[in-house]
Amino acid sequence: MPTVAIFGATGAVGREMLRVLEARDFPAGPIRLLATARSAGTEMAFRGQSVVVEDIATADLKGIDIAFLAAGGAASRELAPRLVERGAFVVDNSSAFRMDSDVPLVVPAINGRLVAYKRHRLIANPNCSTTILLMPLAPLHARFGLSKVVLSTYQAVSGAGQAGVRELERQIELHATGEPGSTEVFGLPIHLNLLPQIGPLGDDGFCQEERKIVTETHKILGDSSFTVVPTTVRVPTMRCHAESVYVETRQATDCERILAAWGGMPGLSIAGGCGMTRWPTPRELAGRDETEVGRLRAASADGHCYSFYVVGDQLLRGAALNAVEIGELLV
Amino acid sequence: MPTVAIFGATGAVGREMLRVLEARDFPAGPIRLLATARSAGTEMAFRGQSVVVEDIATADLKGIDIAFLAAGGAASRELAPRLVERGAFVVDNSSAFRMDSDVPLVVPAINGRLVAYKRHRLIANPNCSTTILLMPLAPLHARFGLSKVVLSTYQAVSGAGQAGVRELERQIELHATGEPGSTEVFGLPIHLNLLPQIGPLGDDGFCQEERKIVTETHKILGDSSFTVVPTTVRVPTMRCHAESVYVETRQATDCERILAAWGGMPGLSIAGGCGMTRWPTPRELAGRDETEVGRLRAASADGHCYSFYVVGDQLLRGAALNAVEIGELLV
Repeated sequence: MPTVAIFGATGAVGREMLRVLEARDFPAGPIRLLATARSAGTEMAFRGQSVVVEDIATADLKGIDIAFLAAGGAASRELAPRLVERGAFVVDNSSAFRMDSDVPLVVPAINGRLVAYKRHRLIANPNCSTTILLMPLAPLHARFGLSKVVLSTYQAVSGAGQAGVRELERQIELHATGEPGSTEVFGLPIHLNLLPQIGPLGDDGFCQEERKIVTETHKILGDSSFTVVPTTVRVPTMRCHAESVYVETRQATDCERILAAWGGMPGLSIAGGCGMTRWPTPRELAGRDETEVGRLRAASADGHCYSFYVVGDQLLRGAALNAVEIGELLV
Repeated sequence: MPTVAIFGATGAVGREMLRVLEARDFPAGPIRLLATARSAGTEMAFRGQSVVVEDIATADLKGIDIAFLAAGGAASRELAPRLVERGAFVVDNSSAFRMDSDVPLVVPAINGRLVAYKRHRLIANPNCSTTILLMPLAPLHARFGLSKVVLSTYQAVSGAGQAGVRELERQIELHATGEPGSTEVFGLPIHLNLLPQIGPLGDDGFCQEERKIVTETHKILGDSSFTVVPTTVRVPTMRCHAESVYVETRQATDCERILAAWGGMPGLSIAGGCGMTRWPTPRELAGRDETEVGRLRAASADGHCYSFYVVGDQLLRGAALNAVEIGELLV
C-alpha cells in the first residue's frame, strides 16, 4: 500500500484531509504528516495511532507515493517539483500550478478521466468556490451548453484558514463589550459585516478569487466560449460557501430536465424541485461530503435562463475531499 | 405647521422616522405617535419633549396632515383610507398599496415629480431592497437603458424588525454555550448562517421579496421592458442591505460614463472608480443617509455588461429617510 504524506497537516485543509483519508478508508500504508517548524513535533491521531508531525524544511522527501500539498502556494512551488523528481504523485491544493497547461485541474466527477491514465505526476485541486460552483454547473454545460454565468458568493471565514475562524470567534466573544477585536486576517471586522473582495484587485476591477473562478471554470470544463461574471463576498459564517448563480444555456431547457441532469451528478444532492420549499444552509452542510443545490427557477419564458443557489463545505468538496478523491483515482 | 403622525412609532422603522424627522428639522407642528396597545402609554422623546404613544385602535384620526404608516400591511389597509377620508396625506411604508395603479410608488430622487403635484393623498414607500438597488440603477436606466439586471442580496436582520435584531443578538449571546437560541423570527438559526428565502415562495419559485424587487423596479422606472432576476438572502448582519448587481445596458458605455451618471444622483456616494480599491460595508454605512456603490467593473468587452456592489441602510434610505423625503415634498 502506498506511503501517503500530507504537507500542511495542521492547517484547516490538512486536518480535513487526514479526517477524510481515515473516513474513506484510503488504502494508505504508512502516513506522514508534515508542517512548518511551528507545528512540527505535535502529534495527530490517524486510525487510532499517534503520528508525530515532521518539519517540512528538514524532512526526507524520498519514499512518498502520494503527496497532498496544503501548505500554501509558496510551499507548493518549492515542494512539488522535488516530490515529483523523487517519484511521488502530487495533489496540490494551492493555486500555484492550476493554470499550467500541462497540469490537469481536476474535479473527479467532472474530468477525473484526466487522472485515470496516470500520465501526470502533478495534479491541481481547484479553488474551493470553483469546485462548489461546478458541481451543479458542469451537468448543465454537458447537457445544454452555457452562454453566460453570473454568480455572487457568500464565503465562510474558514476559507482563510484557521486564523480566519479564530478571528471571527474572538470578535463574537467580544460582541457584548463593543470592542472590535483583531482584524489581522480580514482587515476589517467580519462579525456582523460583509467584505466584498477576496484577494488583491486586478486592473480590470476583478479580485483574485473572482479571476480564479473564471479561469478555472473554463479550464475544467474545457470551454472558454461562455462568460463567467463572479462577485466574491466574505460573510460571517464559519464553514461552507454558498453561491447564488444565474445561467443562460445555449439550448432551451426546463426545470425538470435540469433536475434530471443534476440527479446524475455524483456528490450533488437536490434540495427540491421547481418552486422547491427547501434549500441548503451552511450550518446544515458543514462537515458533509455532498454539495446541495436548491431554489431552482426559470428566469425567462424562453427556456434559456435559470437561477439557483448552491452550498458546499469548502474544506471538504472544495478542498480535502476533492483532493482525496483524486488520490483514489491514483491508487 | 402641519400635524404629523407616525403609526407604528415604536417599531424599527417608526423609531428611525422619528429620529429622521428631528434630524432634518422637518416642519412639523404637533407630532403624534401611535402604536398597538402593547406599546401605547410609553413615552418617546422628540425635540426635547416627551410624547406619549397613543393606541392606534382607539386614537382619533382627525386633524392629521401627514401620516407616516409603519405598522405593517394589515394596519395600513385599515388606516390609510380612513386617514385620507379625514384629509391627511398618507406615506405608507407597507407593501399594501405599492402596486395599485393609482398609488404612486416614490423614491424622491428618481420620481419625486409624482408627488410634487399633490394629486395623490396616498403615496407608497418602496421595499427597502428595491430602493437601495434603484439608487445606482436608475441613473443607468436613464442614461443608457437597461436590458437585464441580475442581483443577489445580503440582507440584514433588522429588515425583519426589532424582533429580528433581538433574535440574532440572543443567538450571539448563546454562542459560547452551543445552544441555538430561539428561531421564532427566521425559522432557522441566522447567527453564522445564510437563509436564501425572504417571504413565501410563489409557484414560479421566486420568493415574495424577489417578486417585490421585480415589480417595484419596473413600476418606479416606468419601464418593464427589461428583465430583473433577484435572489434574496438573509445574512447575519444587523443593519444595511448589500446587493451584488450585474447589468446589461441597451447602449454601450464605459466605467467613466457610469461614474458620471452616479455622480449626479442625490444620496448616492461612490466608493471609488474602475478598479476601485475601496468598497462599502454594512458596519460603515449603518446609520448613514447615503447609499454607497463600489466595485464597478466591466464584465464584457462590448461595453454593455457591468458588475457593481451597493450597500445602504435599509431602515433609512430603504424606509424612514425615503418616507420623510416624500413628506418633505408634501409640505
